[in-house]
Amino acid sequence: MNPELGVCYYPEHWPEAMWADDAARMVETGLTWVRIGEFGWSRMEPTSDDLHFDWLDRAIETLGSAGLKVVLGTPTATPPRWMLDKHPDMLAVDAQGQPRKFGSRRHYCFSHTGYIEECVRIACVMGERYGRNPHVAAWQIDNEYGCHETTVSYSQPALHAFQNWLEGQYSTIETLNAAWGNVFWSMEYDRFDQIELPNLTVTEPNPAHVLAFRRFSADQVVAFNRAQVEVLRPLTDAPLLHNYMGRVLDFDHFAVGADLDIATWDSYPIGFLSDRLEADKAHKSAFLQQGDPDMQAFHHDLYRAVGRGRWWVMEQQPGPVNWAPYNPAPLPGMVRLWSLEAVAHGAEVVSYFRWRQAPFAQEQMHAGLLMPDNRSAPALAEARQTADDLAGLGAITQARTDVAILFDYASDWAWATQPQGAGFDYFKLVFSTYQALRRAGLSVDFLPAEDIPKAGYKVILAPGLATIGPDLEQRLTDGCELAVLGPRSGAITLDFQIPATGRPGLTALDCTVDLVETLPPQVTREVDGGGAARHWVDRLSGKAPDLLTFQDGTPALKGTDHMWYLAGFPDDTLWDRVISMAAALTGIALHPMPQGLRRRQTAGHTFLINYNSAPVEWNGRMIEACDVFIQENDTPAEG
Amino acid sequence: MNPELGVCYYPEHWPEAMWADDAARMVETGLTWVRIGEFGWSRMEPTSDDLHFDWLDRAIETLGSAGLKVVLGTPTATPPRWMLDKHPDMLAVDAQGQPRKFGSRRHYCFSHTGYIEECVRIACVMGERYGRNPHVAAWQIDNEYGCHETTVSYSQPALHAFQNWLEGQYSTIETLNAAWGNVFWSMEYDRFDQIELPNLTVTEPNPAHVLAFRRFSADQVVAFNRAQVEVLRPLTDAPLLHNYMGRVLDFDHFAVGADLDIATWDSYPIGFLSDRLEADKAHKSAFLQQGDPDMQAFHHDLYRAVGRGRWWVMEQQPGPVNWAPYNPAPLPGMVRLWSLEAVAHGAEVVSYFRWRQAPFAQEQMHAGLLMPDNRSAPALAEARQTADDLAGLGAITQARTDVAILFDYASDWAWATQPQGAGFDYFKLVFSTYQALRRAGLSVDFLPAEDIPKAGYKVILAPGLATIGPDLEQRLTDGCELAVLGPRSGAITLDFQIPATGRPGLTALDCTVDLVETLPPQVTREVDGGGAARHWVDRLSGKAPDLLTFQDGTPALKGTDHMWYLAGFPDDTLWDRVISMAAALTGIALHPMPQGLRRRQTAGHTFLINYNSAPVEWNGRMIEACDVFIQENDTPAEG
Amino acid sequence: MNPELGVCYYPEHWPEAMWADDAARMVETGLTWVRIGEFGWSRMEPTSDDLHFDWLDRAIETLGSAGLKVVLGTPTATPPRWMLDKHPDMLAVDAQGQPRKFGSRRHYCFSHTGYIEECVRIACVMGERYGRNPHVAAWQIDNEYGCHETTVSYSQPALHAFQNWLEGQYSTIETLNAAWGNVFWSMEYDRFDQIELPNLTVTEPNPAHVLAFRRFSADQVVAFNRAQVEVLRPLTDAPLLHNYMGRVLDFDHFAVGADLDIATWDSYPIGFLSDRLEADKAHKSAFLQQGDPDMQAFHHDLYRAVGRGRWWVMEQQPGPVNWAPYNPAPLPGMVRLWSLEAVAHGAEVVSYFRWRQAPFAQEQMHAGLLMPDNRSAPALAEARQTADDLAGLGAITQARTDVAILFDYASDWAWATQPQGAGFDYFKLVFSTYQALRRAGLSVDFLPAEDIPKAGYKVILAPGLATIGPDLEQRLTDGCELAVLGPRSGAITLDFQIPATGRPGLTALDCTVDLVETLPPQVTREVDGGGAARHWVDRLSGKAPDLLTFQDGTPALKGTDHMWYLAGFPDDTLWDRVISMAAALTGIALHPMPQGLRRRQTAGHTFLINYNSAPVEWNGRMIEACDVFIQENDTPAEG
Repeated sequence: MNPELGVCYYPEHWPEAMWADDAARMVETGLTWVRIGEFGWSRMEPTSDDLHFDWLDRAIETLGSAGLKVVLGTPTATPPRWMLDKHPDMLAVDAQGQPRKFGSRRHYCFSHTGYIEECVRIACVMGERYGRNPHVAAWQIDNEYGCHETTVSYSQPALHAFQNWLEGQYSTIETLNAAWGNVFWSMEYDRFDQIELPNLTVTEPNPAHVLAFRRFSADQVVAFNRAQVEVLRPLTDAPLLHNYMGRVLDFDHFAVGADLDIATWDSYPIGFLSDRLEADKAHKSAFLQQGDPDMQAFHHDLYRAVGRGRWWVMEQQPGPVNWAPYNPAPLPGMVRLWSLEAVAHGAEVVSYFRWRQAPFAQEQMHAGLLMPDNRSAPALAEARQTADDLAGLGAITQARTDVAILFDYASDWAWATQPQGAGFDYFKLVFSTYQALRRAGLSVDFLPAEDIPKAGYKVILAPGLATIGPDLEQRLTDGCELAVLGPRSGAITLDFQIPATGRPGLTALDCTVDLVETLPPQVTREVDGGGAARHWVDRLSGKAPDLLTFQDGTPALKGTDHMWYLAGFPDDTLWDRVISMAAALTGIALHPMPQGLRRRQTAGHTFLINYNSAPVEWNGRMIEACDVFIQENDTPAEG
Repeated sequence: MNPELGVCYYPEHWPEAMWADDAARMVETGLTWVRIGEFGWSRMEPTSDDLHFDWLDRAIETLGSAGLKVVLGTPTATPPRWMLDKHPDMLAVDAQGQPRKFGSRRHYCFSHTGYIEECVRIACVMGERYGRNPHVAAWQIDNEYGCHETTVSYSQPALHAFQNWLEGQYSTIETLNAAWGNVFWSMEYDRFDQIELPNLTVTEPNPAHVLAFRRFSADQVVAFNRAQVEVLRPLTDAPLLHNYMGRVLDFDHFAVGADLDIATWDSYPIGFLSDRLEADKAHKSAFLQQGDPDMQAFHHDLYRAVGRGRWWVMEQQPGPVNWAPYNPAPLPGMVRLWSLEAVAHGAEVVSYFRWRQAPFAQEQMHAGLLMPDNRSAPALAEARQTADDLAGLGAITQARTDVAILFDYASDWAWATQPQGAGFDYFKLVFSTYQALRRAGLSVDFLPAEDIPKAGYKVILAPGLATIGPDLEQRLTDGCELAVLGPRSGAITLDFQIPATGRPGLTALDCTVDLVETLPPQVTREVDGGGAARHWVDRLSGKAPDLLTFQDGTPALKGTDHMWYLAGFPDDTLWDRVISMAAALTGIALHPMPQGLRRRQTAGHTFLINYNSAPVEWNGRMIEACDVFIQENDTPAEG
Repeated sequence: MNPELGVCYYPEHWPEAMWADDAARMVETGLTWVRIGEFGWSRMEPTSDDLHFDWLDRAIETLGSAGLKVVLGTPTATPPRWMLDKHPDMLAVDAQGQPRKFGSRRHYCFSHTGYIEECVRIACVMGERYGRNPHVAAWQIDNEYGCHETTVSYSQPALHAFQNWLEGQYSTIETLNAAWGNVFWSMEYDRFDQIELPNLTVTEPNPAHVLAFRRFSADQVVAFNRAQVEVLRPLTDAPLLHNYMGRVLDFDHFAVGADLDIATWDSYPIGFLSDRLEADKAHKSAFLQQGDPDMQAFHHDLYRAVGRGRWWVMEQQPGPVNWAPYNPAPLPGMVRLWSLEAVAHGAEVVSYFRWRQAPFAQEQMHAGLLMPDNRSAPALAEARQTADDLAGLGAITQARTDVAILFDYASDWAWATQPQGAGFDYFKLVFSTYQALRRAGLSVDFLPAEDIPKAGYKVILAPGLATIGPDLEQRLTDGCELAVLGPRSGAITLDFQIPATGRPGLTALDCTVDLVETLPPQVTREVDGGGAARHWVDRLSGKAPDLLTFQDGTPALKGTDHMWYLAGFPDDTLWDRVISMAAALTGIALHPMPQGLRRRQTAGHTFLINYNSAPVEWNGRMIEACDVFIQENDTPAEG
């Protein structure tokens, strides 16, 4: 199947008279998909039980008959105002104990059963009405779980659900007290109903308490999503999907994704550079109007794993947005570049957000493919060009990569609970791993801990993996020639204790963490021969050979031919050394890339993607600024 | 009328035995005005309805018979403790939902009708008692509206008043929903009483909602002030005034000022440099003990407009204050300099705050003209010297300036609601405009949008003006030879929508904003020939000629001979170019000034005001550090 | 008595089968003391009135019979969960009005009488059971008062206790109104029950109100501690003690200490460098794994005064901790260095925290002498080595020093209430004084204002002393040849007023503060001949001779041969000059020290303590990195 383009559209925002023209213009632009409905609850049901779907019937008919495939969204991310009259306690509550009031979106608490029933009801109504509609080719459930930090809620419904969840996990209060080590500061409980949510304590609460609450909160997202899946499944054959966000790690996307057919995500390269990425000012200036060269690919690869191979970009930034600290415009060519890059990583559909810039409400400063007055915005021509490019390109088939990264949401929850050193962050660690692989010109897969294919990869990297049991170690060693662990791997049990078997507690590697150190930003621990650890240092002992050592003689990397443990959070130089050593050991060919140029290999093509605002030369070929060079693989492309 | 000096005095803070000596010493210092009473409610009415005015009778008599004119303040900024027993819900509430407790001042909510009645009652009692007292020559209502961020309150009384205000504005809920675009995220309301205050939402509330609340809150200040005006007017012929603060933009000072006779403001040059002005450390160090060279003049010119020509400095900093992050002492000469500068800008009275430093309570570290032990503080001699200077100077008559700035409080509310780029700020934009004009040696008037004299100015600058209707455009073009608009002008309607007519939506200029960009501090957009835009860039199209272009070829300034639109927030170099071009077009003579030296021209005099701590040469004349050089205009003064 | 070593141990955290081995290994390490029990309430009393002391009986017996002396802690810092069912309002409340919830420790409000009764009850039970137990050789009451900012609580019990406290202080509301100057902003009260806690006011509350609340809060700590002292005293002859923290100044440690026999403190050199000390990055990097060279000694000397000569280190950092922003490991030798340094300053016991790293709960990343799996952590060998060193050293006798610093907790409360300049801080001022004395190679005593020995010192420095009455001035002048006061000395009365006698209001020195200035960090006021004032400048007048002057001619130091007043917060150069001048005047020999090397003289020994990570030469002798050189005093040691 060839990659396709789409767009997000809000018929309820525009006079019905414009719909047919809009649909025709979408088709003319080369778009084949249109997403609608996900914020429209107050129009579908203006007051409780007063259903108005005629406008949506006509919108679907208008779009569908123009030749567009419709993604229909359930509107549960935006409960209308009357919902609060029915369920006054449905609001999420923030860590300061304040209800998160009506007036924007995502104001519901995932633990409110009354609200979940309302969501199931509206999904059922929609499924019954449109489940077999030939124009409705996919269903989106809710919108951007976790966005605006909404996974965690400190409400009373959340409290009671948490207490029940704990009882389900631990059966007896004695078991919980022991598992959490509550004897530590006389924190022992007599009954589950004494356990409060872990906010507003005098000093930090028990990390076991916090981690349990994070796991519970993530489970509530899975359950919330599943409730709608279960009602929609019997009513439609169209695939179900959700649109995830960038750098949202609050819930386990693999677990949510397991109930869905396709993973999609919302890609805002320039917004994310400004808002969600630590980088120095020089980097942020160099890529201000392009986005970080690895941030999109990282999520493409991650969501390809979440979707078990099937994934889309549901919302693609088309121009300046409204929500980042700074909102510049993309350089000419970037909208096309982002689209082709997504395709290179396997996107089935790239869908722009939004069709026409709204002149009102929160996102009135968010660009669309059209301006508010219906003139073309710069991105429209780039979308058209992309459609032509895709037509020429044909099908893109993904290939098994040599290297993979094990990605584990729960590790982020653990390290956010107890960073031990300011600035230690799971995403930063994994992203630095990914960047190093990409500097080496490698294509990368992501893997969930639960599902590692056997003997599939030459190298799997699993940095910062909080908990490793014997099963997972087995899956890792079965899955690759060389597993690279550390730093901070296997450091805790699921109950947030130091494992009785020691850290990292591996069977196959005689290597123990005796001591942990964290470092301020201005201090690094230098490695003999170049590179350094920053942020984090595990002091290692054990019989496994030292492959690299710090300048004080302690091990920086220990390992055998099949498993390595890295003692610190590597800087770029150290990562490059480690990747080179691993490639040499396992016979991977590296393709060192210049700054801002990235390479993605599929079964049939090699994509060279230039995020720089200037042309860059690589292997004797000049790639233009903000451009993508695509080569078929039978031509020898690179040195 | 010759400018005069005054002082703020608190007879209730000192033994009655000291009053006569104080009055004599004031007169001896050359002061003719004394402000009293504005914080004295607990002494006027120690418990509810138990009135004690005998001490105030005697204080007025003592001061008045010494030859001083009294400004009498209504004490409504400091409701006494018993007021809370009567009106427990009168406290303002902060954005976190916390009542702003008793124990300092300004703890009332502007929307509490019970408290407003108390204010009217006490104003009535005072008006009846002192309205015809020959010593009472002016009335001050309340004190520093908006200080300590008190304009906005999230109380229940504010909520209900806001709902009523909205119903008054929109009549039907359908009108409001449409005007705000509430369909956007299913935010539609069924009834006005469902609308909450726009705090504590999950992500940003609808900017239309926020702007409406800001407009409502500003209206409440006008209404609060008017309630006292209405009770005092029939009881006295003395002028009514209020003392505004520096860089408080929360309410429309023009609207409050329309009900009063004189505008006064409280000028703390050193405190404001430390606390209320963005500037780099070099600038803050250079002017640490003098204050910023433009900050005072800016407010003098602004409040001259608010007072329709009549204005005072009600509180003039005389030494170190207590409330800024850092509180150094003025350099010798600065108290006189500030006083003479105010006079140059048209102040009728400059009144020092305060007579004697209090040894107790919140402001015990705030200098006065006297030390707590009654010795002279350094400012006393400077006040005496200023009185002598004024005696020699005679009357100062203001002259119509060549250039004016349109100043619009509502634009600040709009851009604070949706800055779009961190650091974008209406005051900063207008202040940078003012600084550029002052670097060019020009005298400046401010204008409200509602009242622009016809054909009065060569150039009117209206940067960042949020909303422009056809009427305002007409007033602007009628009012000057060249109107300079942009950036971000005419960008929204009063309901915070992008105008259907486009941005800026001008009739006389074929120029449209297609795209908006905001930039981080380290990035600027360079203009061909010098200068750059920072923070904000409007991407322009339209047939109006490009007068300046960015280095990427897009327009930086478009315009005709009568109207210009500036595409970005100019840096100093760009402002200087634009001012030069505008001066050349309209025939204004510029007088480029060295750093820290400022020039103010009145009908009869030219003032050269040296804020530097070192002498500075200008046109062959040396002006001493912290000194003012005054020249009569019939002498040819400058090149 | 020779100095001894100890350790903190939690038998309730480990299987009883391990206890005997642990005890034997402690003895083998050379430890003689073991502290237990202070967090064990939930095991002593699992539910209300259900007492379980059998395990503690056995633990004490096991440890004691191995030869260890037991410090037994009352567990009142960790009220168990059931306590909340009995006393739901016992939680402390933060300044935002939020209860500080159960789930960590120190969650009680010091003003809750019900909880105090529970504490007295459990202390009584323990005293009756163990008061005469031969193994229990000392009692610790509660744990780390004030830690986690717990001294101040804004609860209802605190409010009522505060109102009663005020009535006790002022008797009538008129007296209070006058003392606080409540007339200032009509803040006068009619009744004590109208006075609220000074949080959440619109702008800053009356500093007199805040200071009274701080004094009250400090008094509540004294009363809380005393309640347990009173019940334990009759039940045991063992000394009573408390373990204070570093840089906690919220309550008057001298006042708490007056009820106890020994002062102990918890010394975390690396954690404190990261978390509780302002220093530039170069300094923080240089001493990252050693701690600041003066921070420990400062507290040793301070707590020696609090304990009236008797003091311990109760918790000594043995490796990385878990709670600082960054947590690196000590360099080899540092645990021994810290221990010997404490002994040099007079510690009777140095007790390591903790015996074995716990694998669970909040402090699982906090190192012990043993790893969680019972292997030796690096500190164990250093403890063993220290024990050997101490055995060779014999008794250490403290000697009267030449110089002393007057330390006054209430001054910190005053200046925290009204810093006047951002960054002005009492601790920083006193610490800079201490550092200057230590750079000069001097040993230092601390003195409380209430207890200054007559004619004991050559120089007493009393920087930043908020309040000075005639009695204190007399004690100061009787206590030394030269008293050095200023800056900001004698600046307020106990009621936070500027004294009617002026500032500093000294009888013996004709010197008056006329004006106060505060400066931003980038600006200093230079002194003729070198050095400068930063942060704070008192402008002085008076007939006392000017000993140093600022470059603008105003006095920087005024004084007679017996009393000096320093006009500003000195930078290091100015401090060094002042110390040199004072030493020259009083005949003190200075021993200038290189960076990181510190000198401590006792009656019998001179300790040279090298905090540097490299050897340092001094007087021709090389002292190794992280090492202590100890010389007997009859050998001429230094030039």
